[in-house]
Amino acid sequence: MAVLTPQQEDFPRWYQDVLTKAKLAENGPARGTMVIRPTGYAIWERMQAEVDARIKAAGARNAYFPLLIPMNFFEREAEHVEGFSPELAVVTHGGGKELTEPLAIRPTSEAVIGEYMAKWVDSYRDLPLLLNQWSNVVRWELRPRIFLRTTEFLWQEGHTAHATEADARQYARHILRDVYQEFMHNVLAMPVIVGRKTAKERFAGAENTMTCEAIMRDGKALQMGTSHELGQRFSRAFNINYSSADGATELCWTTSWGASTRMLGGLIMCHGDDFGLVLPPALAPVQVVVVVVKDADGAVTRAASGLVEQLTSRGVRVKLDDNVAAAFGWRATDWDLQGVPIRVELGPRDLADNAAVIYRRDTCDKSTAAIDTVADGVLRLTGRIQQDMFDAATARRDAAISDCATLDAARDAAQAGVARVSWELLGTDGEQDLATSGLTVRCLQRSDGSLPETDHDAGTLAYVARAY
Amino acid sequence: MAVLTPQQEDFPRWYQDVLTKAKLAENGPARGTMVIRPTGYAIWERMQAEVDARIKAAGARNAYFPLLIPMNFFEREAEHVEGFSPELAVVTHGGGKELTEPLAIRPTSEAVIGEYMAKWVDSYRDLPLLLNQWSNVVRWELRPRIFLRTTEFLWQEGHTAHATEADARQYARHILRDVYQEFMHNVLAMPVIVGRKTAKERFAGAENTMTCEAIMRDGKALQMGTSHELGQRFSRAFNINYSSADGATELCWTTSWGASTRMLGGLIMCHGDDFGLVLPPALAPVQVVVVVVKDADGAVTRAASGLVEQLTSRGVRVKLDDNVAAAFGWRATDWDLQGVPIRVELGPRDLADNAAVIYRRDTCDKSTAAIDTVADGVLRLTGRIQQDMFDAATARRDAAISDCATLDAARDAAQAGVARVSWELLGTDGEQDLATSGLTVRCLQRSDGSLPETDHDAGTLAYVARAY
Repeated sequence: MAVLTPQQEDFPRWYQDVLTKAKLAENGPARGTMVIRPTGYAIWERMQAEVDARIKAAGARNAYFPLLIPMNFFEREAEHVEGFSPELAVVTHGGGKELTEPLAIRPTSEAVIGEYMAKWVDSYRDLPLLLNQWSNVVRWELRPRIFLRTTEFLWQEGHTAHATEADARQYARHILRDVYQEFMHNVLAMPVIVGRKTAKERFAGAENTMTCEAIMRDGKALQMGTSHELGQRFSRAFNINYSSADGATELCWTTSWGASTRMLGGLIMCHGDDFGLVLPPALAPVQVVVVVVKDADGAVTRAASGLVEQLTSRGVRVKLDDNVAAAFGWRATDWDLQGVPIRVELGPRDLADNAAVIYRRDTCDKSTAAIDTVADGVLRLTGRIQQDMFDAATARRDAAISDCATLDAARDAAQAGVARVSWELLGTDGEQDLATSGLTVRCLQRSDGSLPETDHDAGTLAYVARAY
Repeated sequence: MAVLTPQQEDFPRWYQDVLTKAKLAENGPARGTMVIRPTGYAIWERMQAEVDARIKAAGARNAYFPLLIPMNFFEREAEHVEGFSPELAVVTHGGGKELTEPLAIRPTSEAVIGEYMAKWVDSYRDLPLLLNQWSNVVRWELRPRIFLRTTEFLWQEGHTAHATEADARQYARHILRDVYQEFMHNVLAMPVIVGRKTAKERFAGAENTMTCEAIMRDGKALQMGTSHELGQRFSRAFNINYSSADGATELCWTTSWGASTRMLGGLIMCHGDDFGLVLPPALAPVQVVVVVVKDADGAVTRAASGLVEQLTSRGVRVKLDDNVAAAFGWRATDWDLQGVPIRVELGPRDLADNAAVIYRRDTCDKSTAAIDTVADGVLRLTGRIQQDMFDAATARRDAAISDCATLDAARDAAQAGVARVSWELLGTDGEQDLATSGLTVRCLQRSDGSLPETDHDAGTLAYVARAY
């Protein structure tokens, strides 16, 4: 029962098929917008909960700033407005009248939050000021694709102000490593490449943009989250000053960082296979489905319900599928499509043998277990699948990376995967050359995996790929 | 240390003082918008968590629909567009170009969700379709006031489709009673009056609007949440059809229902006093603060930390205030302002007596307890404060209500409180007459507290008041 276009045949169509058939999302009525359906939104809610807990552990507090930003706010930081103005949606009418000053729908909130930071920060005792916001933003998209590039998307955006450059730098890295990378590794089971963006790829208004880049199953890269050092640019534009311990007036150092519903696209394309979505257990809204294969007298359903109860009481997110009116094969295909990590199958013959079948979605392997060992087995298996999915994704990523010694070799290798090449060799000229072939430098990294401190550190490696 | 304008002196200024001094929220840069600061947003997050759990228990699933709605969608239901078009914010430019069709920023999402319900509902097996969305909406406000009337606000909006009128009716009431009223009573400690809106006050496009109305400390009413029966109007406008069990094509019956950040304003004005916010324990982000009064050698702080640990391990949301560098009086005033329900105060003399002072914010009563009984005492007290706050608010509400036998008596009584008057006596003419005095019929209720089935049930009582 081939419900999806195979990945090898047409990867973009496979992606679209998964979105549609697993009922994750579809296009909205206005160009580039999307509707996130309940099945997709449940995954986003799990991402939100996990990221939010990490952001709070990093000391930031949630707040909410307005959707509509006066154009003059937006124009105060020159690079920022230059980068974002081609993407703005603009409100010109409100309450039946033309507005005296048009309002931009936020594409990001540095400008409005800068204004309030300036009000709220008085002395060094108010620093660091650590804020986060969960919201929608709008950026006009010419080539929209659901979750990956949409005119409206959902995200969190963190905004912080610090007394010193060192403190801002340290915090931006803390978010990058201990919030984003840690979440992506341990919850999404995605081995992201963490690096520094080149000047060309930097956030408009940042002095340094750092990124988590994931490699999809078709060898393309996807930016999953970014953390920016904004230096004193926004502090200067919005007068975010503080008085130091010795009474001097100083400008703050600010950061911003964000991760969005784009991660849903990354999750699908990093782990998904020809049967559909494959969800890591730490993320999955439903970790285990207990399926009643057939039932004549209710005995199988009673046993299955007992398993559901046992698993629930042990903290597993579990669902019962007792819809025996539908064919088992059809239901199994659908649970595969939804990517539920573990399926426990129970039929009359299994019950007679006091056994159940345990199926893991990531490898499609089946095994048989005695019914009273199912709960223990499932709990062990969730941890194993999580690790195995991370390892498999790492192996795929590493297989996609080619070390290249020349610009030509890098250009060839990046057609179907990721080229790793000396940044000294490549340079901004090489980067410009690759752009004509649709290739970008995803990030720069030192050979030991650490982050370069400047745009041109010696011995830095560039990761070159096609990107979503 | 009078930090706030007394309520008796100037209630609106008291409200504004609480918002500012407790750092809950302030005005945004664009007219009518607001910034919700971390302290205010933490309360909203607690409201969201509690309401969301109840909505999920009622079987609805969260989803997300676009912010931007093409004007033609919006215009399909005549009453709906008539009611909302004076309040719309309109995007005319995107990506640097004028749009061929302007886009409305959603003031509510019936129109866009109707379009997708029509796609997703095929047969009676797909019903009921129960959706909910947490989002921002924009309605141009001429007389904005933070939390109460803002151009942009945050809310949840539920949207459901049903096979029969009876099912839609039952579900709209289930949300009203078992989600909204139950949450407002048991979490917010607010005794809302549940009733039916008159035709004049009905949601634009609804056949019946039901409401939860709360009475503020100044005697004015505030609409806290509404649930609408939309009949078949939106089904007709958007072709939300289903095929019944016997193959006939039928129109669905739809409902919608919402509660917003406006509840924050209601919470402040229902419970707050001249010292600031008063939060019910079931809602409070911080339920207990353990305050170190003074400390010479660290012994008091150690004992206070021990209490914090004990309370945390028993599931209490607790915070330590060991900021002994600041005067105790100043800190106590600030915790009062923030409305933290219980304060445990510990100083060197208390410690020498092996005792602590327990202070409850709602009554400002203090008592002394042996240190090793503090945790048990605090746990008992959270339940008692919750009940006492509900009872006190009920007593205030009931004292504000006057039974009136004539239109003139109702007009007088509603200047400073709530008039309860026969709806047969009042009628739509009386309602119109009261409107000229700035008074509205908040809702209609049968004398036994149940909901009228029609606009003119016999024996119905009208609640008349000034309203926010």
